[in-house]
Amino acid sequence: MSDTDLANDGGIKLVMAVVRPDKLGDVKRSLAETGAPSLTVTNVSGRGSQPAKKGQWRGEEYTVDLHQKVKIECVVSDIPADDVVDAIQEGAATGEPGDGKVFVIDVEDAVQIRTGERGRDAV
Amino acid sequence: MSDTDLANDGGIKLVMAVVRPDKLGDVKRSLAETGAPSLTVTNVSGRGSQPAKKGQWRGEEYTVDLHQKVKIECVVSDIPADDVVDAIQEGAATGEPGDGKVFVIDVEDAVQIRTGERGRDAV
Amino acid sequence: MSDTDLANDGGIKLVMAVVRPDKLGDVKRSLAETGAPSLTVTNVSGRGSQPAKKGQWRGEEYTVDLHQKVKIECVVSDIPADDVVDAIQEGAATGEPGDGKVFVIDVEDAVQIRTGERGRDAV
Ligand SMILES: Nc1ncnc2c1ncn2[C@@H]1O[C@H](COP(=O)(O)OP(=O)(O)OP(=O)(O)O)[C@@H](O)[C@H]1O
Ligand SMILES: Nc1ncnc2c1ncn2[C@@H]1O[C@H](COP(=O)(O)OP(=O)(O)OP(=O)(O)O)[C@@H](O)[C@H]1O
Ligand SMILES: Nc1ncnc2c1ncn2[C@@H]1O[C@H](COP(=O)(O)OP(=O)(O)OP(=O)(O)O)[C@@H](O)[C@H]1O
Ligand SMILES: [Mg+2]
Ligand SMILES: [Mg+2]
Ligand SMILES: [Mg+2]
Repeated sequence: MSDTDLANDGGIKLVMAVVRPDKLGDVKRSLAETGAPSLTVTNVSGRGSQPAKKGQWRGEEYTVDLHQKVKIECVVSDIPADDVVDAIQEGAATGEPGDGKVFVIDVEDAVQIRTGERGRDAV
Repeated sequence: MSDTDLANDGGIKLVMAVVRPDKLGDVKRSLAETGAPSLTVTNVSGRGSQPAKKGQWRGEEYTVDLHQKVKIECVVSDIPADDVVDAIQEGAATGEPGDGKVFVIDVEDAVQIRTGERGRDAV
Repeated sequence: MSDTDLANDGGIKLVMAVVRPDKLGDVKRSLAETGAPSLTVTNVSGRGSQPAKKGQWRGEEYTVDLHQKVKIECVVSDIPADDVVDAIQEGAATGEPGDGKVFVIDVEDAVQIRTGERGRDAV
């Protein structure tokens, strides 16, 4: 079997998503069903392309420009990155502004710390 | 128009910076003025190349070796990554040790979760 | 000297690891001994390939599926990424499930904010 018969053309991919915190459970379920249960979660805040919202507090104007989100990182080799992207989108989408983004990045090597295994099988 | 006429040679870039927490506001303003307002912020800690500082607390010596920083991630397609780097540097620099670093990483694909749009236009 | 005589074939690498929180100190020491003391640390949670654990609390069943971990990011140019990977593994391994993973990602450019220096020397 040639490399290009393997998922991700024989490579390893990092799928990084920023989603609504209350969608984390749905995304985890969706990823597990796709066969990609391993993930790393980080609490983040951020803003997309919408202008900042202005509010008032005790007579002072303030700007709410960073919203709480969670970052989900999922490294895959045998599962196509596209399937992971689809699973995340399915779990995270509400159709309202602020649903988030997914980015795919190439990974050159992977190591499982417990075993020392390297490469695609370490993912 | 050929791909190479596009910003970032037709690619998508992740600009990842680690800066002083009290410079976040200046960096956000500087990025917005550059036309790259979208970003993700993470509270991190870290150390650069300086040796750790030693202190004393109740007679015990301790080492302060991780300083609070914020990580700023900014993915761009139509705006050159170099402009984003410049905007971050302009917002974050004080000239003193500890100002931070900026790293540029290639992104293979991007998806806007709300619309399902993919590629450069999804950024 | 040609580019390929340089560490990392003349490139810059991001070594990203997710490890047990109580191994952070050992990993920092191991990295410093390898000549790669600079790093960024993020509190994260995650799960690997093991099935989720079920528990009971006040009669309710719940699932513990995300474990606290720390993410360590280390960007290097003159030090081979492989040496950084080995240092992290040496510091982080216990031999038990949950020790974590290390991923290596290519970095296209780096900037030291204080000096404006770019490229390998900025790392
Ligand atoms: N270009 C980007 N770079 C880095 N982070 C981004 C980018 N775009 C979005 N994010 C992250 O995703 C979160 C959600 O973004 P959001 O969904 O609002 O994007 P958007 O482009 O405004 O799309 P929408 O119109 O659907 O709201 C942001 O809070 C931010 O953390
Ligand atoms: N090589 C690196 N890899 C990962 N993170 C880094 C690296 N260098 C710096 N950082 C992050 O950037 C933060 C600020 O670094 P700092 O500006 O002190 O770097 P420096 O090389 O010591 O430069 P300076 O001499 O200007 O202080 C660190 O606390 C760390 O989080
Ligand atoms: N494929 C992955 N993608 C993203 N994060 C991962 C991945 N695999 C592991 N992690 C992160 O590393 C942490 C530790 O993973 P863990 O060591 O349990 O992996 P594992 O494959 O189950 O190996 P082991 O059998 O040694 O436990 C997880 O909690 C998660 O944060
Ligand atoms: Mg938005
Ligand atoms: Mg420093
Ligand atoms: Mg495990």
